[in-house]
Formats: sequence, C-alpha cells, structure tokens
Amino acid sequence: MVGAGQLARMTQQSAIALGVELRVLANTSDESAARVIVDTRLGDYRELGDLREFATGCDAITFDHEHVPTEHIRALAAEGYAVRPGADALVHAQDKAVMRERLTSFGAPCPAWARVSGVEDVSAFAAEHGWPVVLKAIRGGYDGRGVWVCRTPADVAEALSGGVPLMVEAFVPFERELAVLVARSPHGQGVSYPVVETVQQDGICVEVLAPAPGLDPEEAAEAQRIALQIAHELGVTGLLAVEMFQTADGLLVNELAMRPHNSGHWTIDGSRTSQFEQHLRAVLDLPLGSPSMSAPVVVMANLLGGDDPDLFKRYEHVMAHDPGIKLHFYGKEVRPGRKIGHVTAVGDDLEKVRARARHAAVYLTTGEYT
Amino acid sequence: MVGAGQLARMTQQSAIALGVELRVLANTSDESAARVIVDTRLGDYRELGDLREFATGCDAITFDHEHVPTEHIRALAAEGYAVRPGADALVHAQDKAVMRERLTSFGAPCPAWARVSGVEDVSAFAAEHGWPVVLKAIRGGYDGRGVWVCRTPADVAEALSGGVPLMVEAFVPFERELAVLVARSPHGQGVSYPVVETVQQDGICVEVLAPAPGLDPEEAAEAQRIALQIAHELGVTGLLAVEMFQTADGLLVNELAMRPHNSGHWTIDGSRTSQFEQHLRAVLDLPLGSPSMSAPVVVMANLLGGDDPDLFKRYEHVMAHDPGIKLHFYGKEVRPGRKIGHVTAVGDDLEKVRARARHAAVYLTTGEYT
Repeated sequence: MVGAGQLARMTQQSAIALGVELRVLANTSDESAARVIVDTRLGDYRELGDLREFATGCDAITFDHEHVPTEHIRALAAEGYAVRPGADALVHAQDKAVMRERLTSFGAPCPAWARVSGVEDVSAFAAEHGWPVVLKAIRGGYDGRGVWVCRTPADVAEALSGGVPLMVEAFVPFERELAVLVARSPHGQGVSYPVVETVQQDGICVEVLAPAPGLDPEEAAEAQRIALQIAHELGVTGLLAVEMFQTADGLLVNELAMRPHNSGHWTIDGSRTSQFEQHLRAVLDLPLGSPSMSAPVVVMANLLGGDDPDLFKRYEHVMAHDPGIKLHFYGKEVRPGRKIGHVTAVGDDLEKVRARARHAAVYLTTGEYT
Repeated sequence: MVGAGQLARMTQQSAIALGVELRVLANTSDESAARVIVDTRLGDYRELGDLREFATGCDAITFDHEHVPTEHIRALAAEGYAVRPGADALVHAQDKAVMRERLTSFGAPCPAWARVSGVEDVSAFAAEHGWPVVLKAIRGGYDGRGVWVCRTPADVAEALSGGVPLMVEAFVPFERELAVLVARSPHGQGVSYPVVETVQQDGICVEVLAPAPGLDPEEAAEAQRIALQIAHELGVTGLLAVEMFQTADGLLVNELAMRPHNSGHWTIDGSRTSQFEQHLRAVLDLPLGSPSMSAPVVVMANLLGGDDPDLFKRYEHVMAHDPGIKLHFYGKEVRPGRKIGHVTAVGDDLEKVRARARHAAVYLTTGEYT
C-alpha cells in the first residue's frame, strides 16, 4: 500500500487476520501506519524509482491516497506489477474533469459542470445555471480544500488567482449527503455496503449514519446501482466510495474515492466485513466478504484534534461512561482540526446511538460534556 | 507482552485501535506476533536480564503464555515494574497444585485431588475415589500434554516414569466442558463474557460454541460467579479463563489461564469487545468494555495444520462459499496438528452456524467437503 496514513494503519488490522503481509511506502517512520507495520519502506511516492523499488516482490500494489502520479502508475503496470486500482480507473478519482466527462458519458447523474479558464467562462456558466456556482480544483483537493462556493464574479476571480486548473459546477441545493461504498475485484465480483448519510462541517466529514436514516428503499437501491455501475464502467479494482447529493429531484454524484474511505470506517465495528478487509480481498482478487451490518444502527464520529494535545485523561471517562463505545486512534499527534481517530457506537435506536457517538467524540476532543 | 505467539499477534489488532504501543519479547523474528509488531525485541523469557531490558520503558508488562519463571516476575515487580497479572496471581495458572490448594480454600468447586510422589499414593487415592484417575504434571502442561488418564497402577507407574512432579485428580464423568472468560482490572472492576461450550479432541480445543447451548441461566450465572470470585480472590489483573466441567452434580473447575485464551477467540467477531482489547484495557487499568455478543450465536473452530502446507488454494473456496465466514491466520508455517488459525461464523441458528464454521475449518485444513 502506497502511503502510510490511517487508512493503511487500519488495513493492517485486517491484514493480520487474513495472513496478508502488508508492506507500506511511508514518507517518514513515524507516520500513522509506519508505527504498526513491520515492513515499512521509506520513499517518495512521487518518484518512480522509489515506487518501483517498493513494488518489487509485492503481489498487488494499492493506495492509501490518490496522489501518486498517474504516469507512474501506468509505468508500474507496464512493467508487470498488479496495480489496483489501475491508472485508467484511478484517474477518475484524481482528476475531477475526467471523472465528470466519463460519468456523463454513461449517464451517471452529475451536477451541470464545465472546464473553465477565466472569469468569463464561469460567468457564462452562471448565466445558464445561476449563481452561486462551485469552483473546484481539478486535481488535489480533499476535505473541503480546493473547493470554492462563488456568489459573484469577484469571488471567481479570487478563486482563479491561485493559478491551479479549475472547473465549475452548478451549486446543488441538496437535502443531505449520502455515500455508497462498493468493492469490485479484478474478475468482476461486486458488492455494495448499505447507503450511509454523511454529515459534514466546514467541508470535513464529522459523522456517518449507517444506514442512511429514513432513506426510501428504492432510492437506496438506485444509489447502490449507480455506485456499482461506476465501479464496473471505470474498471475499478478495490474499493470505490461514491459521495452523492440527495436532492428533491433525485441523486447526483459528487466525488469518487478509490480506497478505504472515511464514510466506511463504521464497517470495522458495524459490518461483518470491514472495508479494510474488503479492500484487501478485492485487490488480491479474493472472493468478497459479506457487507451485512452487525447491528441495526451504527454511527461513526470523527475525532478532530482540539487545542489540548493530551487526550488520555479524557479517554478513561469515555470508556467508563459507555462500555460499548469503540475507540480508534490513528497514532497521530493532536493538531487542531486534524483527523486523529474516530469512535463508533452501535445499537437499535438512532437518536440514542448518535448521542453516544457524539458524546464520546466531543468529550474526547474538547472536554465538553454533551 | 512477553511472548510472540498468536495471542500477542491478535492483541496487536486491538492495540492499533486503542493507540496502545505494543512491544513483544520474541524468541525469533519470524514468530507469529513478531511478523506484525514493529517494536519486537528478541530475548529469552527465562532470563531475568532479557526480561528487565525488555520491560524498561513499558507502562505494564503482560504475557502471551504462562512459562515465565515466577521468581523473575517477582523480581520485576520488586524493581517497580507493573506486571499484570502479578506473580501471586499467575502462579495459580502455572502450578496446578497451588491452584487446587487455593481454590479449595475459598470453596471454588474442584475435583478431588492430591499431590503424589509414588504409585502407592495414587493407589491410595484411587481406593477412595475410584479408578480411573487423572495424573497431571503440576507445571508446564497444555493442550492435553502433561495429562494422563490412568486405569491401573501400571499406567500410573508409566506416567510417573517421566520424572516430573505430578498430582492426581479424580476422573470427572462430565457432560461437557464449559469455559468462562472474565477480566479484572487493578482497581477491581470485573466483567464476564457469556459462558461458552468448548469441544475438545485429543485434549485440544477444536470448537467453541457461544453462548453454551441450552445452558440453564442459573447454572450460567453460577459459572460466571465462580470465575469472577476466582479473579477477585487471586487478585488477577487482565483476563482469566476458567475451564469447567459440567456434571450431573454441578460445575467443577478444571484449569485456569491468565491471558487471552482460545475459548475467547470468538469475541473478535462475536462480541462488542474482543478479549484482546479487554486484556489491554484490564492490564492498563482502563475501564473495561462491553462483553455483549454481536449476534445470537457464534461458533469458533480452530484450524489445525494438516498434511498440506499450502492453504491458499482452499482459502478462496472458503471465502466464495460463505461470504460471512471470518478467517484468522496466525502467520505460522503449517505443521500437522499445530494451531495455525481459526474461523468464526455468526448467526441465529446454532446448527447452521456450527456447520458453516466446521465446513470452513475442515475444508481449509484437509480439503474434505463436509
């Protein structure tokens, strides 16, 4: 696995059970996954030489993030390495314009969009679709970075001043955000987890509710169908997370990720097969595991670093307060706003389960008793 | 954790989630846990110097096995290390005669027993309690080793010829074997998992049924009470597994273990808190986790190495046949009869769940389709 963040770290938990020998490519030996994986190699994922040396001897190469240059992935594949997902699939999670072109080509529902190079292009787009509009960096954005909601041409000019290639999308007046996590293996087996609701704050996912509360079963099936179709059309191998907007007029695809995803962390404690195990099974072309839930309701809440670096004194309270809460720490130093872990609660009653997860997350990170 | 077998390996999965930095003392770098734990130290657990060096800097010291000499544990504690369980507790899992003396002193139900030094002692015991009798090595036996069922004085003479100190116990005509896993933390919090049935073959546990099918709730509560009482009386810190015989006349304690135990492997997939997480919480004096089951029925089956060292070709069948089966491999070379992993199935119907676990275990190890 190229990259040694928390996704690789949590993948190691599943690799241990499956007897899979997981190797990671880390920037430094104190990264989240490097702390828990014996076969950690140090190197730069932007350097083909480092990637090639890392890949030697691996049965399959996969990713903890989407930042490996597409041309390096193509080069590795050309040299015979089993890179999963492959470059032709992964580019759709790296380049939002390529993704929109492709999704539109087979009818996956997307917001109106266009490539833009100046304020005039955006104004013309807004004349057709209305203000506000959403400008997005075509490559490299995540967790709300690289996205600008623009209400005026002046906003647009400011966003464009960064100099990175942008695209414009119609602003979607969504009711809520959903996510569908699917897996697809090289021989084409596919599986979908239940559709979840993701709750964002300042562009960062703070909470995931599984299954999405009150979602019409037909709309849920439609969301899963769209996600499986995208995985099939793009030839994804491994996991594919499809973030969607639920609107009064139906579903629209927002973003794609091709790796374990924050919207799937609930599966560690709430599904018979965690997303990390599923990703390993998929990239190794093993039969996929059951995505069944192990409880009627599962809520995951992210731990976002607060001002106090010492969580330990609050760790004990949370465990004593709720013996059923599951804690996941990423072995990362606390910095304000940084994802340092998550908590999961499971049960029967959404409001109770959600309150438990929220209490644990808020108390751990701020000391406030909610 | 002193020792780097599969118990330490599976403890690492929970340590990753809790953000606990787990260090193991291994004999060699290719042992089960050494393969998945970055902070692996090599050394001999029989040498106080190696133990002391290993312990330096650890918040708590615990064990993957019971073979560390009691006097070394006492020495480490005297030097200020937090050794959990401590020597005064652990000796009851190391020395069966000390265990029987102590359990009898506070009324925990045990088979009749006596220390013996010659055939005459055993014959005198048999005159009172009947033949057959069970001779046991006072120290060092496990998985059926160090136990002899003797039907005649000649059998006794043969068992005694090994030269290790033995004790005798009355042969218990049990209906089945049960196990109760409890945890106790240094400040005295205790928790009990549901009572399970363990199925043995040739003295080796092959299957665990959780909860013990058809067990009378009062007898289950009694079994849990006995186990919690033992943990309290002996001052156990960490996990305590109490193996019991269920007889027509009630429960009898068979063996004790003070560490994660084979009879608790089902908790990884079948309980809200795995025994490995619970052990870490207990030895670190953190509040204990919920022992609730995540499904009505859970069955664990051990994978005992067969003649064919290559499980991989059968690994795929098992995953395809049953997407809900959970596989756990220990990273050990296959040798006939060796515990190389386990499988877990969860569900609602005991016979179906048991058949699923059995199919996976038998097929993986022998290729026979049951």
